[in-house]
Formats: sequence, C-alpha cells, structure tokens
Amino acid sequence: MMAMTITEKILAAHAGVDRVEPGQLINVKVDLALGNDITAPVAVREFERIGVETVWDRERVVIVPDHFVPNKDIKSADQVKALREFARKHGLTHFYEVGRMGVEHCLLPEQGLVGPGDLVIGADSHTCTYGGLGAFSTGVGSTDLAAAMALGETWLKVPESIKFVYHGELPRWVGGKDLILYTIGQIGVDGALYMAMEFTGPAVESLDIEGRLTMANMAVEAGAKNGIVPPDEITRRYVEGRAKRPYTFYQSDPDARYAKVVEIDVSKLEPQVAFPHLPENTRPVSEATGVTIDQVVIGSCTNGRLSDLQLAARVLKGHRVNDNLRLLVIPGTQEIYMQALREGLVEQFIEAGAAVSTPTCGPCLGGHMGILARGERALATTNRNFVGRMGHPESEVYLCNPAVAAASAVLGRIAAPWEVE
Amino acid sequence: MMAMTITEKILAAHAGVDRVEPGQLINVKVDLALGNDITAPVAVREFERIGVETVWDRERVVIVPDHFVPNKDIKSADQVKALREFARKHGLTHFYEVGRMGVEHCLLPEQGLVGPGDLVIGADSHTCTYGGLGAFSTGVGSTDLAAAMALGETWLKVPESIKFVYHGELPRWVGGKDLILYTIGQIGVDGALYMAMEFTGPAVESLDIEGRLTMANMAVEAGAKNGIVPPDEITRRYVEGRAKRPYTFYQSDPDARYAKVVEIDVSKLEPQVAFPHLPENTRPVSEATGVTIDQVVIGSCTNGRLSDLQLAARVLKGHRVNDNLRLLVIPGTQEIYMQALREGLVEQFIEAGAAVSTPTCGPCLGGHMGILARGERALATTNRNFVGRMGHPESEVYLCNPAVAAASAVLGRIAAPWEVE
Repeated sequence: MMAMTITEKILAAHAGVDRVEPGQLINVKVDLALGNDITAPVAVREFERIGVETVWDRERVVIVPDHFVPNKDIKSADQVKALREFARKHGLTHFYEVGRMGVEHCLLPEQGLVGPGDLVIGADSHTCTYGGLGAFSTGVGSTDLAAAMALGETWLKVPESIKFVYHGELPRWVGGKDLILYTIGQIGVDGALYMAMEFTGPAVESLDIEGRLTMANMAVEAGAKNGIVPPDEITRRYVEGRAKRPYTFYQSDPDARYAKVVEIDVSKLEPQVAFPHLPENTRPVSEATGVTIDQVVIGSCTNGRLSDLQLAARVLKGHRVNDNLRLLVIPGTQEIYMQALREGLVEQFIEAGAAVSTPTCGPCLGGHMGILARGERALATTNRNFVGRMGHPESEVYLCNPAVAAASAVLGRIAAPWEVE
Repeated sequence: MMAMTITEKILAAHAGVDRVEPGQLINVKVDLALGNDITAPVAVREFERIGVETVWDRERVVIVPDHFVPNKDIKSADQVKALREFARKHGLTHFYEVGRMGVEHCLLPEQGLVGPGDLVIGADSHTCTYGGLGAFSTGVGSTDLAAAMALGETWLKVPESIKFVYHGELPRWVGGKDLILYTIGQIGVDGALYMAMEFTGPAVESLDIEGRLTMANMAVEAGAKNGIVPPDEITRRYVEGRAKRPYTFYQSDPDARYAKVVEIDVSKLEPQVAFPHLPENTRPVSEATGVTIDQVVIGSCTNGRLSDLQLAARVLKGHRVNDNLRLLVIPGTQEIYMQALREGLVEQFIEAGAAVSTPTCGPCLGGHMGILARGERALATTNRNFVGRMGHPESEVYLCNPAVAAASAVLGRIAAPWEVE
C-alpha cells in the first residue's frame, strides 16, 4: 500500500476508502460543521431550501455568533436572533450566547468539540485552526455549510501537501506566530494555494497547543486548504479529559509524497512583523521599530488565548500604555477571560491603561470595538492586514506576536520585547 | 435680602450678582464645559468658526469620547480622531482615551472634576447628574458648548424650583433609582419642565453619593433643567481629597420659594420598573414580574457605578444567568472596573455567564455593544426607554435598579430581588 500524508489519511478515513491521492475529488463525512453570525444566516436560508426536516446531528452543527457581538447594530441583532431561533427549533446543543461564548476558533478546541483526526468544516476561512490538534479542518462557503448541516457530508479535492520542517531551538520571544509569519513571508500569500501545509520539526514539536493552533490558523493566509501539525504527547495531554468525542492520532508515513519540502532554521529568527497590506510583507522586528502606532490589539482566533495574554502581561509588567495609543485586549473566550482574571492578568492590563473587552472578533475584521480612522495605524496579533481590514481604507495594520504587541503598546511605536525589559 | 433656593444661589454666585429670580435671563461663568464623541465634534467646528486662538481654560474644557467607543465604525473613529487632534492642539488636560476613560457622568465626579457649588454645562442631556453633589449642572446644545469653550460663560434662564421631600426609611432593595423612577411616574416626563428638582428629606439624606447622582441623572427625564441634592457630610466625605478645585456648599434658605412642594412617603415603596416607552410608565416590581426578557444591561451614567455592581453581584450570588437571555455588565469607568475586579465582582459576573465590557455608553442609546433585534425586550439600569432606544423600533426597554436587573437576569423575566434569595 502506498504511503500517505496525515492529511491524506484523515481524508481517506472520512471518505471510507483505503487511500486518496492529490487532485482526487472525494465525498467525506464531516465530524463537525461550524457557522458564525456572518455565514450561518446564509447557510440557514440555504438549509431551509433543501427541505430536510432537521439538521443531520444536533450535537455536531455548531453556531457561534462572534463577529459582531455583543450585537453591534440592528442588522447584526436580527441575524443573531434568527440563528437563535434556528438553534432552538433544531435543538442545537452548541449555540453560544453572549456571556457564554468565545471567538469560534478559540472556543471549539477549548470546549473539546474538535480533536485529532477530525474532519471539520466551517463557514469561516480560519477554520483551518484545528489543524493545530492534528485535525483536517478547512473553511467553506455558506452553501457547503448548508449541505453539511443537512447531510453530515461535504465534497473536497484532495490537496497536495507541502512539508515544512522547522529546525533548531526557538529563540526567546519567538513563537508560533513568528514561525507562520516568517513562512508566509518566504512562500508568499499564494505560496500554498489549495495545498496542505504540514508543520513539522523540533521547533514545532516544542510548541504548546496554543502556538500550534496559531500556526495552523494562518495557513489560509498562504492560500492553503489546511494547515496541520502531527499530533504527539503534547496533543494528547491537551485533549485528554477535554475531547467530547473519540479521536484518532494520524501520522504521515515516512515515505509520504510531498509537492515540496521547505526546511527552515529558526535558531536565529527574530519576532516577525508583517507590514501593510499583506501578511507576506514580513520583516524581523528590529527592522520595524521606527513605525509609530495609534492602536494595539491583542486578541482574535490567532492570538487571543491564555498563553498569548500571559505573554503580553509579562512584557507589560511595570509599564503603562503609551499616552499616544489605545491598547485593546480581547480574551478569546469567556473561559480565557476568567483564567486571565484569576491569574491577575486582567487587573494588570486595566492598571496599565488597556481596555479589556468581552470576547468578540470585533476589530480584527473591522467589525466594531476598535475601528481605525483615516490615516491611523494599528499593530495587532490578528491574522490579516489587507487594505482597510480594521477600518478606514487609508488606515494600516501591522501583524505581530503578543510580546511585540505589548512592547509596542508601551513605547508607542513598533518595538521589540527586549526594549522594555 | 430675599430667600433663595440652592439652585438660585449657585446661579447668582456664577452671575456675579446678589440674587436671581425664576424666569430671569442671566449670563454665568461656568466651572467646567463638557463634550462627548457625539456632541464635541459639532462644538469643535462651531468653536473654530468663532475664531478665538484657543480654549478659555485647557483644564476646564473636558472631552470624553464614550458613546461609540471603542470605536464602533469608521465614522465614529474619524470623529474621535478629530477630537484627539483638537485636544492636542489646545493642550486639553482632560481628554480621555479608550482604556483610561469612562462614561462621562461616572468619570467626572470620580476624578474630582466637579464639586458642590459648581456650575457645569455639558453637551449631553444627562449632565444634570452632578446635582447629586450639590452642583448646578445641565445639558446644553453643541453651539452653547462651543461658546463656553471659547468664553467660559453661558446664558441661562433661572428655573423655578420644585422641592421633593422624601419621608420615611428606604425599604430593602429600594434606592435612588427607585425614588427617581417613582417620582417621574408621579409627575410625568414633563412634570418638571425647565425647572429645578430639589431632592430633600431623610430618605435622600440616607443615600450615598452614588444614589444621589442616579437621582439627579434622571431629572432630565421629567423635563427638568437640573436636579440637585443639598450637600451634607456624605458629600463632604466624597469630595474631600478628590476635588481638583475648591468647592462651596450652598443650601436653600428655609423660606425659599418653590413652585411646588411634593411630599413622598418611601417607607412602603417597592423597587420600580418603567414600562415601555416612557420613564413615567412606572409600576412596583411586583406588578411587572410576568414580563420575559431577552437582554439585561447593568451599566450607564445612571447605574454603572461601583455600588450598582456590588448590588447586582450580591443578588446574582450563587446563581447563573438564565439560558434565555444575555446579561451585559458595563462598569462606568476604568477605575470602577478595577475596583469591581479587586472585589471579585467581575469574576462573579463572568462565572455567572455575563459579558463584562470595557466602559462605554454603548447599548444605553442603541449605539453598539448590545443592540436589540426586532421584537426583543431588554431590562436595563439605564435612563430612557423610548421607542427604539436600544435598537429595533419594534423592540422594548424596561428600566429598573441593579438588584431587579440581576434577579431578572437569573429568572429570565422581570423579577424582584427577593425572588432569588
């Protein structure tokens, strides 16, 4: 039998076949189908046109209103209301209300709703996040979500895989965000178009699950179909006692075929900053420190997890937010908010002069809660810095890790963490 | 010399005359001029048309962006940016950024920017709040604000006064919010049109400053020019060590003339609920308990202070937010957020399933952060329940105190605090 990658193995298992090959169109069973307050309303309307009685599995159709909540305006309120009514009608067990929710891609792993070996689709491009747990997960359109809500199935083209091997030991202040930003900087925003990005090597193995989720999260920013980290003991410790369903650890065969193998030595890597207006415009932080900033955002499905807040708090310690900028800290979920509170991080943020918000995607997508005016510049731990992403078309977004974000919030310009030590 | 009310005495002192009479048009020096992110942009444009070099006093022109912050959209971001540039240009010492701000009428007393005997104008209708400290304060239009920013003066018609005397001891769960709601229920939303509401009597004397600020805050909901509580030892304790300027305790003369004296016995009063769509539609909570609710909001310049959060937390203790509604808790200022955090209140709210937001007026005025969909019903500790106030024109708002709000959040319907004990 021919060798397969981890992505191919998960797809084959869900297609009910022994093997799949890149380029093949397959029908697969999904383990979970996800929608949010932007995409699920469209999916619900399509679902209702299909004419089935009810959803395929009320425990596996998950709706997380997170983009414009707490409701930004009447339109978003009406959308969430329609979703709430749909969830009640079909008895969905995983509909998440304000005050008991989180940013979807932070929430699902935390709640044990996704696990290794899963096949997950979500009508949100950053659904690829769950690859950090060794799952195949990918973003789809609302129509595909509607079909999956009805049938528990979807179709896919099997992607080719690129293997990334990260050698060396991670320098201080360098984490998953820097690895993925650096990688996108190397291969470009279409460098992995409709491909699987498989993240391997000792530097990735040394990352905790949160760092791996961050890496997989941004696979789509290189155009990838999915990003995936082979599951290991660190994965096992994360999912044990948390996973709500059985899970399977898949591993690529040693002789699996890859379209390309990219070797990266991380031992001299600096924290990375992506300049406007593409995530591929990366530079080492030391080449970015002249840029003054109006707003810093720490949060999002990319870097709104507890370890991100811990890192930011460590850098902020003993400092105050610069008078010339606003710092927004947005815990990814209610649970993260609570943990951050119990560890004293929220107190530290507020004392430093940061605004700490209830979980929301908000500013990341220019939704609400921190929109940029004309000519303003933001530094964010988020995932996209396209033109106008956070507000005015003449504003700018720079991307970085939480340590760089925190140091920059102190100094009022892009700064390396070691500048405030 | 003829007797005067406290309101008349403050006005006379600021007009530089021995006495004033109701109906008289006077020019007065102002101690502070306030604008927010809705009104100050208009005032700034008018100010620039006046053609003076700079503001009358850079320590007394206060700008607090609080309605749509953190910036809701590009328009609000552009507005705040223009204000920030104005504040920098004129060296304003009191411009409040996200993360270091609060809802204006919670922030100014807390920061000691207003005190007894002050004359304060603000381009916001709830500027009357500071009457709780024994100040004359009132809302004005943006053009009047612009003139005051340039000259430190404004004109006023001296209002007639109504004296309210609250007799008896406050029953448990009844506070300033209930006194003012009950009063508006008695006299109607135009019951004190362009008049001073002077709140006196043992029940008011027993209120802490926060309860008094709540009462004065809603004077405008009865059409009043101002609301005022005679300052006393409780006032002195509040302002000592806090006030940034000297202050004066004025008292009404015993034989001062009133348009009307209204006597109210509070000893049998229940917590009050104002039904849609006017604050005068008040009923005792026991006659309101059938109404189901989609959202509860605890916050605003009316009831977003520390004692409000303490009261809500006391009622919530040991309970969870009802599955069928969202509870939003919005501390009035960053300082209140911090205190609530240190006292464990924030942890309790989050554990109960509430969303705790950074300070903003947000939902109170239907701005953002909790807008109602068509047909939804909110119960709020805010100040207005006009048609569409919090969102869709077909939504409803009920007003109450923080204890009723918390009990209702637990039971999913309007509820008395004693129902969850």
